[in-house]
Amino acid sequence: MGLWDIDKIEYVGRQGVKEGLGFRYYDKNKVVAGKPMKDWLRFAVAWWHTFNQGLVDPFGDPTAQRPYYRYTDPMDQALAKVDYAFELFTKLGVEFFCFHDRDLAPEGDTLRETDANLDKVIDRIEAAMKDTGVKLLWNTSSLFTNPRFEAGAGTSPFADIYAYSAGQLKHSLEIGKRLGAENYVFWGGREGYESLWNTRMKEEQDHMAALFHMCVDYAKEIGFDAQFLIEPKPKEPTLHQYDYDAATTINFLRTYDLQDNFKLNIEGNHANLAMHTYQHEVRVAREAGFLGSLDANQGDKLIGWDMDEFPSDLYDATAVMWEVLANGSIGPRGGLNFDAKPRRSSFLPEDLFRTHIVGMDTYAAGLLVAAKMHEDGYIEQLQQERYSSFESGIGSTVKDGTATLASLEDYSLDKPQAELIAADKSDHLEVVKATINNYIVEALAQA
Amino acid sequence: MGLWDIDKIEYVGRQGVKEGLGFRYYDKNKVVAGKPMKDWLRFAVAWWHTFNQGLVDPFGDPTAQRPYYRYTDPMDQALAKVDYAFELFTKLGVEFFCFHDRDLAPEGDTLRETDANLDKVIDRIEAAMKDTGVKLLWNTSSLFTNPRFEAGAGTSPFADIYAYSAGQLKHSLEIGKRLGAENYVFWGGREGYESLWNTRMKEEQDHMAALFHMCVDYAKEIGFDAQFLIEPKPKEPTLHQYDYDAATTINFLRTYDLQDNFKLNIEGNHANLAMHTYQHEVRVAREAGFLGSLDANQGDKLIGWDMDEFPSDLYDATAVMWEVLANGSIGPRGGLNFDAKPRRSSFLPEDLFRTHIVGMDTYAAGLLVAAKMHEDGYIEQLQQERYSSFESGIGSTVKDGTATLASLEDYSLDKPQAELIAADKSDHLEVVKATINNYIVEALAQA
Amino acid sequence: MGLWDIDKIEYVGRQGVKEGLGFRYYDKNKVVAGKPMKDWLRFAVAWWHTFNQGLVDPFGDPTAQRPYYRYTDPMDQALAKVDYAFELFTKLGVEFFCFHDRDLAPEGDTLRETDANLDKVIDRIEAAMKDTGVKLLWNTSSLFTNPRFEAGAGTSPFADIYAYSAGQLKHSLEIGKRLGAENYVFWGGREGYESLWNTRMKEEQDHMAALFHMCVDYAKEIGFDAQFLIEPKPKEPTLHQYDYDAATTINFLRTYDLQDNFKLNIEGNHANLAMHTYQHEVRVAREAGFLGSLDANQGDKLIGWDMDEFPSDLYDATAVMWEVLANGSIGPRGGLNFDAKPRRSSFLPEDLFRTHIVGMDTYAAGLLVAAKMHEDGYIEQLQQERYSSFESGIGSTVKDGTATLASLEDYSLDKPQAELIAADKSDHLEVVKATINNYIVEALAQA
Amino acid sequence: MGLWDIDKIEYVGRQGVKEGLGFRYYDKNKVVAGKPMKDWLRFAVAWWHTFNQGLVDPFGDPTAQRPYYRYTDPMDQALAKVDYAFELFTKLGVEFFCFHDRDLAPEGDTLRETDANLDKVIDRIEAAMKDTGVKLLWNTSSLFTNPRFEAGAGTSPFADIYAYSAGQLKHSLEIGKRLGAENYVFWGGREGYESLWNTRMKEEQDHMAALFHMCVDYAKEIGFDAQFLIEPKPKEPTLHQYDYDAATTINFLRTYDLQDNFKLNIEGNHANLAMHTYQHEVRVAREAGFLGSLDANQGDKLIGWDMDEFPSDLYDATAVMWEVLANGSIGPRGGLNFDAKPRRSSFLPEDLFRTHIVGMDTYAAGLLVAAKMHEDGYIEQLQQERYSSFESGIGSTVKDGTATLASLEDYSLDKPQAELIAADKSDHLEVVKATINNYIVEALAQA
Repeated sequence: MGLWDIDKIEYVGRQGVKEGLGFRYYDKNKVVAGKPMKDWLRFAVAWWHTFNQGLVDPFGDPTAQRPYYRYTDPMDQALAKVDYAFELFTKLGVEFFCFHDRDLAPEGDTLRETDANLDKVIDRIEAAMKDTGVKLLWNTSSLFTNPRFEAGAGTSPFADIYAYSAGQLKHSLEIGKRLGAENYVFWGGREGYESLWNTRMKEEQDHMAALFHMCVDYAKEIGFDAQFLIEPKPKEPTLHQYDYDAATTINFLRTYDLQDNFKLNIEGNHANLAMHTYQHEVRVAREAGFLGSLDANQGDKLIGWDMDEFPSDLYDATAVMWEVLANGSIGPRGGLNFDAKPRRSSFLPEDLFRTHIVGMDTYAAGLLVAAKMHEDGYIEQLQQERYSSFESGIGSTVKDGTATLASLEDYSLDKPQAELIAADKSDHLEVVKATINNYIVEALAQA
Repeated sequence: MGLWDIDKIEYVGRQGVKEGLGFRYYDKNKVVAGKPMKDWLRFAVAWWHTFNQGLVDPFGDPTAQRPYYRYTDPMDQALAKVDYAFELFTKLGVEFFCFHDRDLAPEGDTLRETDANLDKVIDRIEAAMKDTGVKLLWNTSSLFTNPRFEAGAGTSPFADIYAYSAGQLKHSLEIGKRLGAENYVFWGGREGYESLWNTRMKEEQDHMAALFHMCVDYAKEIGFDAQFLIEPKPKEPTLHQYDYDAATTINFLRTYDLQDNFKLNIEGNHANLAMHTYQHEVRVAREAGFLGSLDANQGDKLIGWDMDEFPSDLYDATAVMWEVLANGSIGPRGGLNFDAKPRRSSFLPEDLFRTHIVGMDTYAAGLLVAAKMHEDGYIEQLQQERYSSFESGIGSTVKDGTATLASLEDYSLDKPQAELIAADKSDHLEVVKATINNYIVEALAQA
Repeated sequence: MGLWDIDKIEYVGRQGVKEGLGFRYYDKNKVVAGKPMKDWLRFAVAWWHTFNQGLVDPFGDPTAQRPYYRYTDPMDQALAKVDYAFELFTKLGVEFFCFHDRDLAPEGDTLRETDANLDKVIDRIEAAMKDTGVKLLWNTSSLFTNPRFEAGAGTSPFADIYAYSAGQLKHSLEIGKRLGAENYVFWGGREGYESLWNTRMKEEQDHMAALFHMCVDYAKEIGFDAQFLIEPKPKEPTLHQYDYDAATTINFLRTYDLQDNFKLNIEGNHANLAMHTYQHEVRVAREAGFLGSLDANQGDKLIGWDMDEFPSDLYDATAVMWEVLANGSIGPRGGLNFDAKPRRSSFLPEDLFRTHIVGMDTYAAGLLVAAKMHEDGYIEQLQQERYSSFESGIGSTVKDGTATLASLEDYSLDKPQAELIAADKSDHLEVVKATINNYIVEALAQA
Repeated sequence: MGLWDIDKIEYVGRQGVKEGLGFRYYDKNKVVAGKPMKDWLRFAVAWWHTFNQGLVDPFGDPTAQRPYYRYTDPMDQALAKVDYAFELFTKLGVEFFCFHDRDLAPEGDTLRETDANLDKVIDRIEAAMKDTGVKLLWNTSSLFTNPRFEAGAGTSPFADIYAYSAGQLKHSLEIGKRLGAENYVFWGGREGYESLWNTRMKEEQDHMAALFHMCVDYAKEIGFDAQFLIEPKPKEPTLHQYDYDAATTINFLRTYDLQDNFKLNIEGNHANLAMHTYQHEVRVAREAGFLGSLDANQGDKLIGWDMDEFPSDLYDATAVMWEVLANGSIGPRGGLNFDAKPRRSSFLPEDLFRTHIVGMDTYAAGLLVAAKMHEDGYIEQLQQERYSSFESGIGSTVKDGTATLASLEDYSLDKPQAELIAADKSDHLEVVKATINNYIVEALAQA
């Protein structure tokens, strides 16, 4: 049974209502919409939540029970975790993982010592990747946990902290290159402000952009060809974060001529904290050509902080996978990373498996439902019909650029009200929502 | 095809994914958990939304297209609407309806004239009720629309407005008696404050309670035995409303010795505006013995105002119907009123039917899913096991009242940490959420 | 006493705590920070709220009592309102006003008839402007109230509605030209979506951008040189609006190459609905070079809809005026428009004067406080010190573009933790907040 | 300069705008509204925030720099902190403090060992109290930090955890008795639910109430006469907490016949998390006779978690102190506890003093402003006039209980609309808000 005392998780299909230690919907090689499920979904395990998260909250100490806690020396534990991690990946059948540099190894007194600690763990990871075939979806650098980042990293008002951040990033890019990371993620948890009174917002963003340009240059220099991704979040830990949401981040990229080098990593719970739906953020990124990868999790829309719950909501999963199908893939080299932790009350080692199964099945279900919708062209037809008046007549002059205010006024000037009102068609949105319910039931009843 | 140019809506069952003009799940006489569906659900149509709502919003004029708009005289239109209403009820197979006094007829210059207008429409309604067998789930009084109520009705600081409100209520109670209303509802949209600086909160609540007592007394006097209900809402139109949520309202009732005369009418969208789930509010009311009736609708948790959308969310419907099954019924004489309006973009007459079908099917589906859960005792067993340590040993001393701080300290004083930690059992909540997904799919796939 | 039965409002200064019909802080010609108060503030009255708003809410009929309600013919009332409006402007000493086309005159059956109605009122306004010297801060077009706009105007899926919108805009631009408007505003209350399922977001935004380009072209054609402004709002009436906030709108402008033709009109209550502070939105616009004009109002951060309250919060007014002083002006041709209405409980004609006095005094107070802060260079010095490490040494290599990841790593590689931590300086933000309190008291105690 | 290397903080009064290490408004013995400031305010320091809080957040390690961190043995540090604490109290001139049991000393393996550790620190505290005259405003028990409380303490589904909680509470009550605590506080951070599906809400509340009754009994038994207080909070750490807000908590107390034994400790930031203002919660508690004590802090209404910022908002402080003046005192034995921590960026030892000065001055300012308002009877008169119609005529029949629906109908039946509308008086709320601004400026300009 291995380190985790659990068998490999297999596809068992629908077997009544019980949730066991098997997949109900995720049948990795099953071809859906022209590709195996695993290639649509490209699941990844998040090192920080799955292996490091003790299940603390601001008012509570850790509840997690983990077998490697018996290693009390930090480096010993760090190395042991690599073995536990890769066994979990393979038992779950997850082909990717993600990490922050500081997830892996403890800091030393200097960056040089910290890098050395880290490299020892990277050696072990590199070997495990070769052994198992598990790949690195992305790595990233923790520029927010250490107290030195209290006022930011790339936007710190303190030049030494900025310089340190750059040094830390350099080594992270080298690790990404070494491990063949498909993407490299930037999450700016401290890049924002607590008060505008003591903040030069533009100057901070200038600094941040300069650092991003240095990263682009260095990646080029060392031949690291991963897709760079920014992960938007509106707030928490910082009162206001510059990468607030997809549109704000794209605006930043355009402002600083970084739009060709970066795409976005979109997270469900972050979307909600910005008062958007997950689908909204994916749509904004997708239609602007910036969809890079996904962090799959969920929160509670009545709660104001990041819950990082494992996804179980079928509506969200359906909507997101519908966008992914419309996009042809999650992103050029994207995947679906579970930026999610078990609840504090799910503290057993086994719960790590159970929660990943729930998350994987939820997105597999979403894929099945969305694929059936695409197969029927349900949404496509509904939209085609709704926008059809732009295909010909006066509408087509808007499309072909010949319309002017004068030509459109001329067209409209003597139209009576009744004729105008008749141009509006009822969309009976309620029926659309019920039809999506129907797709969920019918698609999953056939799974 | 009658006034509405639409056939009677029939149960057609699952027929692929399309939503047509038929019920997919609502099979009114089908016995579920020991009762016909219609007796669990007791659907009601809300006069104000279905017949009066022009589909305005704070920035937009009405979009609704209604056949009776051809009657331009207010009383003619009011009377015609009765015919349209009862045809809609019977075509939908809905057995109840609800109204505010001012929904039915225009105001005159005095209360006496207003009452006279109203009575003419009531005559027609009474006749239609006899003809069709449709019953009045509840009536209520609009004490919020007219400008005179700008500072409240029962909590108005102006005694003449208070007196008028009492007069208006008196006639409403008489109408309820005449039409055999099962319940009588109080919604205090203006009973609250815009600013605490100019408000004597306690004095206002004293006045409100006095008015409620007068209503109780008058109902007794005229032999009107309907269940009195208060409908909580936290805000909108008023900045803060006194009947904020279920717990606050129950506190008010207890404070003023009204707890034996009132129960609650719980609404989904109002729950969300108070930052609660619909299930939470139903649970609070149910466990305290105050569940009276339901207003079924939904909002969007990221939106801060009352959307009054027709319900389509299967999670909410399942949760609410689970509570109803646990309760044995919606409430002593309760029903499920669609306090819901079509979107502004669903403006056709036909959309009124389509939206009710969506709402009815959603709650019928919720009933089917919840019934299967109850049948399996899924939640009951899960809870039974979770709380089992209170069934015997030290736990039972808490139940039987023999425990004291000293007896419990004595029991605990030398227990080592490890033993205490072992007393906590993982609840793997994520699996519970996935299992509810499974119930939705499996129960509806068998429908 | 004129039409309003009220005397001209004069500056009376601080006279105890009572609020009378005089200005406490707004002394229009008093020079503050090098300019008369009136030139910093450029107050404008909003026609829709001040003259048309009946003080309705979604659950209540109008409470406003207005002298011109005695004119029952719509055109008579429209023309009479012009006289009332200009008397109010001059009595308040407000030098600007703003309007939507549909605020002024009723619609006819065709656009041609509607334009004709409108032109009659414009004639009267033009004359009154000449007589009084009051100027048009901006005009705009109501593309959201009429039911035809239920699914948008420039983003309507119905080409005829799009065409009509263009025709309506054309005439609005002509009116702006004729009346010498300083700015022209676009507020897209219906430009967004109710559901992503039936929405082609990018296609809608393409259409919108095409319409904006047509407006730019037509303004050039007729020699209308007003500053074009977009007013962001996240939602209400639409579930999601494309001009969500300042950053999102700037992103839109950059995407469609409109960044040289548009700036932003920033509103306080809209900022809060997007979960931002007013200062945040002003700062974002200002530092990006997009600050155009201001809508001054306030909401309640615990309320989820647009309250459009007259501003009275000294913290907001101070922060916004601090940004304005830092910017040199509100915007190239900007002003401060009271997009604000009295509460429903402030329904008297006199309350229109009282509420404007409160709003004007609040911003005059904010100007006085902010000017004292700028005079002392309080914030400037605090920021100068905070960011000083970028002025020399390693920090300056970031500024001059010579830094690379390698040079920064080299600088950092052997720095011990303690040295890094010492690079962070405490900002004691709490003291900054208290100091702003002190500025409010000291600056206003000297007014 | 003592342990903290800082001089005693003195009242220095208004000296320009700078915030130094002196009080601007807090002049402890100055008589305001008949009592010395210190007796109105009864400030208390919160042990957990001031001495234990490392200034972590969910994404960041501690930034706080504290002199006693040089003690690495937990008990040594615990004892040293007592000396630092009492020096801070006396240097600030704060006469009260508050603590949780677990703030003071580390846990042992059993409750017996934990109690022993705690008692050693209590010995030192008792001595320091005698030496300095500083008193205990309240103590409380941490029933939320240890992982054993992951599912609650008094509402834990696990009887052993419940029993342990009781044992822990017993010793806390004994300590309260020994140190002469004025109040004893219960904050139920884990008493609520994560999901209703696995929760028996009523049963959990039954258990909680049983525990409260045991505490009441035990306090009586040992002669501990402190006022018992519950501190409401809606959520965080738990998804939903039973003591949601003041009204909900009062409802709980009434339900379980605890209303004579408990009052409330109201906190500003908790009020905002429940979507209420601080003033609202204080008013609800005060008018119901449940105002016990205050936790003074502030959050940011656009942020969804507990920030526990030191209070600096003059509007909140004025409103709360107005209620306190109306109440005659904060509560029977209440005080004003700074449940507040410096920002992560205010990490120096000196910042602990600076932040308390800001908090104390803010509430001293609030007291001065509110006292001037009360002195003028400004709000009292405004309300007196507003409600005057209930003093005589028909209104007085409501007060004296002789009104009935019939008598009020009779009074109203023939009143024309115009007369009714005239009964409403404009409250011009905007002017009220501006007048409060004036009070702030005028009262503080005289300080």
